[in-house]
Amino acid sequence: MVMHEFDLIQHFFAHQLQPMRTDVVLGIGDDCAITTLPPGHELALSIDTLVAGIHFPDSATAEEIGHKALAVNLSDLAAVGAAPAWVTLALTLPRIDEVWLALFAQGFFTLAQQYQTVLIGGDLTRGPLTISIQAHGFIPAGQAITRSHAKPGDLIYVTNTLGDAGLALHYLQQKIDLTPQQMSIMQRLHKPMPRIAEGIALRNIANAMIDVSDGLAADLSHILTQSNVSATIHLERLPLSATLRQAVPLELAYSLALTAGDDYELCFTAPKNKQSLIKSKLKSATCIGEIRATKQHDPHQLMVQLDGKPYFVGVGGYQHF
Amino acid sequence: MVMHEFDLIQHFFAHQLQPMRTDVVLGIGDDCAITTLPPGHELALSIDTLVAGIHFPDSATAEEIGHKALAVNLSDLAAVGAAPAWVTLALTLPRIDEVWLALFAQGFFTLAQQYQTVLIGGDLTRGPLTISIQAHGFIPAGQAITRSHAKPGDLIYVTNTLGDAGLALHYLQQKIDLTPQQMSIMQRLHKPMPRIAEGIALRNIANAMIDVSDGLAADLSHILTQSNVSATIHLERLPLSATLRQAVPLELAYSLALTAGDDYELCFTAPKNKQSLIKSKLKSATCIGEIRATKQHDPHQLMVQLDGKPYFVGVGGYQHF
Repeated sequence: MVMHEFDLIQHFFAHQLQPMRTDVVLGIGDDCAITTLPPGHELALSIDTLVAGIHFPDSATAEEIGHKALAVNLSDLAAVGAAPAWVTLALTLPRIDEVWLALFAQGFFTLAQQYQTVLIGGDLTRGPLTISIQAHGFIPAGQAITRSHAKPGDLIYVTNTLGDAGLALHYLQQKIDLTPQQMSIMQRLHKPMPRIAEGIALRNIANAMIDVSDGLAADLSHILTQSNVSATIHLERLPLSATLRQAVPLELAYSLALTAGDDYELCFTAPKNKQSLIKSKLKSATCIGEIRATKQHDPHQLMVQLDGKPYFVGVGGYQHF
Repeated sequence: MVMHEFDLIQHFFAHQLQPMRTDVVLGIGDDCAITTLPPGHELALSIDTLVAGIHFPDSATAEEIGHKALAVNLSDLAAVGAAPAWVTLALTLPRIDEVWLALFAQGFFTLAQQYQTVLIGGDLTRGPLTISIQAHGFIPAGQAITRSHAKPGDLIYVTNTLGDAGLALHYLQQKIDLTPQQMSIMQRLHKPMPRIAEGIALRNIANAMIDVSDGLAADLSHILTQSNVSATIHLERLPLSATLRQAVPLELAYSLALTAGDDYELCFTAPKNKQSLIKSKLKSATCIGEIRATKQHDPHQLMVQLDGKPYFVGVGGYQHF
């Protein structure tokens, strides 16, 4: 039985268990959703698209896709220090597959629930599998952490570990083997967790922040360019998981941590005098380098060192085209 | 030369002439856009996707696609009485075609400029041509016009003329011929205008409103269902353009006006005592029927009459799947 668009939305999305939010005046089911913004706050918003075969492998389950599509958008909110509030979902499907939709909804709403995020609207269309999600979050006025305020002398940090999603992709591309114990690393690729609490904790502490979606080197370079500064990072300080260290030679581990995308950790800079505050508030943060003033005619905006010596690697990051 | 995603966004979108809005704290180029909402207002938001070959014909130009993708989203704002403010754009392209992108941007930004709408963020991905736009608008708190407050005794109105986009589609499907003079009707399909001023003018006047995207009968039925009322509409009162009347037999003209989609006119209901107010404020509105209380066991939620007699037509509306 083929259902109408409206029935489908009703069936799979409107009846889902959703957190109650008093700032949602009108949710799914009209021409627009209607919402309010708490006084003294600004609205952070971001839209991201996942295309089948490009942003997730064919082997990804619908539940993983539902999770990841939301996670990467919430990660953009985390990257400015915002607290998630509402999302909209534009879902393009080649055909109605009710099992697929139910699993997608499960991945999506399970994550949404964890972050008190409400689905307030969407559009369901027929076409090649494509998922666009727009996330909206709140941030106290003036406290958004952007890419453009890194200062010379700032220390550079990343949360948790880097390169794990890259390792998982290497496995999927049959470039390496993993033991059964190491297979849990696949979750880092398929079900990344947005670092919302970390982003919020860094309000009034971090000078600049970005989430690592295209690879540390590429994403940190955005901070450098937009802040008009340079940086040195120290490879031996990059936080690597035990699995990554064990599964591949150290050089490849460094390369994945530096250039592979999809980790969705936060990379941020903060003044040196915040170091002990960060240590106490953010157990997961590791200091990996420092921001320098950009010298004239210096071609090395981002200098990578290993044990104090220059180390040259490809730092292209993920190319979208 | 293939440009990076970031260069492309910069080149085609970030440098466009855009209206200045003091409510945009941070626009394109960071993880999130940051915005503020004027005091006493609510935020109206809607997301819509256009898929190539489904929502626009292959013959549509990039400039028309850029216009239409934005127009259908602004139309959702019009349908609740909101004033447009900001939009985000998720653009999925099979390959970088700079001529196509420049034309798309021209159609998009020309319309955006007319409604003081700013592009504040986006995502550019590779894949089958798909365009998702999320529109955000403002409305004084409590004044949003929804689908669910039509009242028995309300009169039903539509703006401008209906069926013109359907006529244009009929021509593209080679079902009819058009004279060179009649070809201007193609604009109604390719470059619909969102009825923003009309939507705003109807605040505190209309009880319920929707935009006609799937066809009058289908869209009015949403109002009826969500308001739990019934309606009678009078075919002979439907506003038909001279072109539509001349190009096809009257019966087909009625059918197109009633069931063809893509007109993006507003359909609204308002109390009888607002009739002269509407006449003076909204020259483009035509009264086409009235809302009735739903009788038990009456299968005709929407009754269509011609010269006072029941008239039966297929009223399915556009099927998304």
